[in-house]
Amino acid sequence: MGKKIGVILSGCGVYDGAEIHESVVTLLAIDRNGAEAVMCAPNVDQLHVVNHLTGEVDEGATRNVLVESARIARGEIRDVTEVSADELDALILPGGFGAAKNLCDFAVNGPDCKVDAGVAALVRAVHEQGKPVAAVCIAPALLAKVLGDEGPELTIGNDADTAGAMATMGAAHVECPVTEFVVDQDRKLISSPAYMLAQNIAEAAEGIEKTVAALIEMT
Amino acid sequence: MGKKIGVILSGCGVYDGAEIHESVVTLLAIDRNGAEAVMCAPNVDQLHVVNHLTGEVDEGATRNVLVESARIARGEIRDVTEVSADELDALILPGGFGAAKNLCDFAVNGPDCKVDAGVAALVRAVHEQGKPVAAVCIAPALLAKVLGDEGPELTIGNDADTAGAMATMGAAHVECPVTEFVVDQDRKLISSPAYMLAQNIAEAAEGIEKTVAALIEMT
Repeated sequence: MGKKIGVILSGCGVYDGAEIHESVVTLLAIDRNGAEAVMCAPNVDQLHVVNHLTGEVDEGATRNVLVESARIARGEIRDVTEVSADELDALILPGGFGAAKNLCDFAVNGPDCKVDAGVAALVRAVHEQGKPVAAVCIAPALLAKVLGDEGPELTIGNDADTAGAMATMGAAHVECPVTEFVVDQDRKLISSPAYMLAQNIAEAAEGIEKTVAALIEMT
Repeated sequence: MGKKIGVILSGCGVYDGAEIHESVVTLLAIDRNGAEAVMCAPNVDQLHVVNHLTGEVDEGATRNVLVESARIARGEIRDVTEVSADELDALILPGGFGAAKNLCDFAVNGPDCKVDAGVAALVRAVHEQGKPVAAVCIAPALLAKVLGDEGPELTIGNDADTAGAMATMGAAHVECPVTEFVVDQDRKLISSPAYMLAQNIAEAAEGIEKTVAALIEMT
């Protein structure tokens, strides 16, 4: 039976949720590596709803992170609080602003951010069981917050401000080109810049495909 | 300069819009084949909004097809009426219920369906310029409606009811396995079943990747 890879989604759309290209490439890479995706998301309202045509916040609109994530998951998704680390062999967090707006509030509060309790609990539990965790794009900032006391090596590409904020949370930021990934072997953490740097979908996909293969190899 | 491939999206989510996996795999395949995606969608309200977690219609909710499609497009999308066949080398329609609910109303009215005027005009114009058109999943039903008077050979996999409806519209339905595609060489039409048959994302992706490669080869 294939390895089970937890995938934490954060909505559906780069500006207020999970980055859709990153999420789908992650799911495809998991399947092509003979593993199975176990999708989950927090059952909370999004920070806000962004009109992706105009880039403007849709004032007064509300959407639920779990319900919107279900669009990417074709309905096959569970509340993150209902997923146990025991059933997973590894965990991955695609990016998109949702990772920094809905899974935690890093986009608003930077290094002082709070992480959704269910998401933090699952990340910590998988990590404490010695299973590998990967994060893509801006999502490594969440890992920096949850696991910062261990001084993890992570990348979000090369953005100086974000890298500085990650250092404040206790992470050692490593610069990384878009088509590559960074491995923290001791802590079993993998990260890749994806759309923090990617100029097109193929660039993002190459780094994510390598990340997923390395994650499954590490299980 | 790379070939320009029009991509008509129909929202964002399998049950009320464009199938997200099919759309992203299409965009990635276009990029990896050295071509450029020109994304567009009709600027109209969706038929309805479906909660993808429960599968239920969200009564009273409204979403715009162009605005929701912009989530898949990361904002790089135009009203279908603003895209000219002159600027394209080929056209592709990913599937999802949106293709049969928003681009046309085949899901409601079957062979008597009406096609969105802007979508029909672009499909017809690209076709009349002798450029190839591809459609995935349920979207070939739309091609059958628009081009049925030419007796096109198309596939939606092997669903007898849908195949029968396509025949009523004038198409010759060809059965096709999920990882393959059907070419109507005379009319420069390509189709593949994708999630009409796919049991997982890798199956859908294989057929779509082959379809996109054949489409670009045919330009």
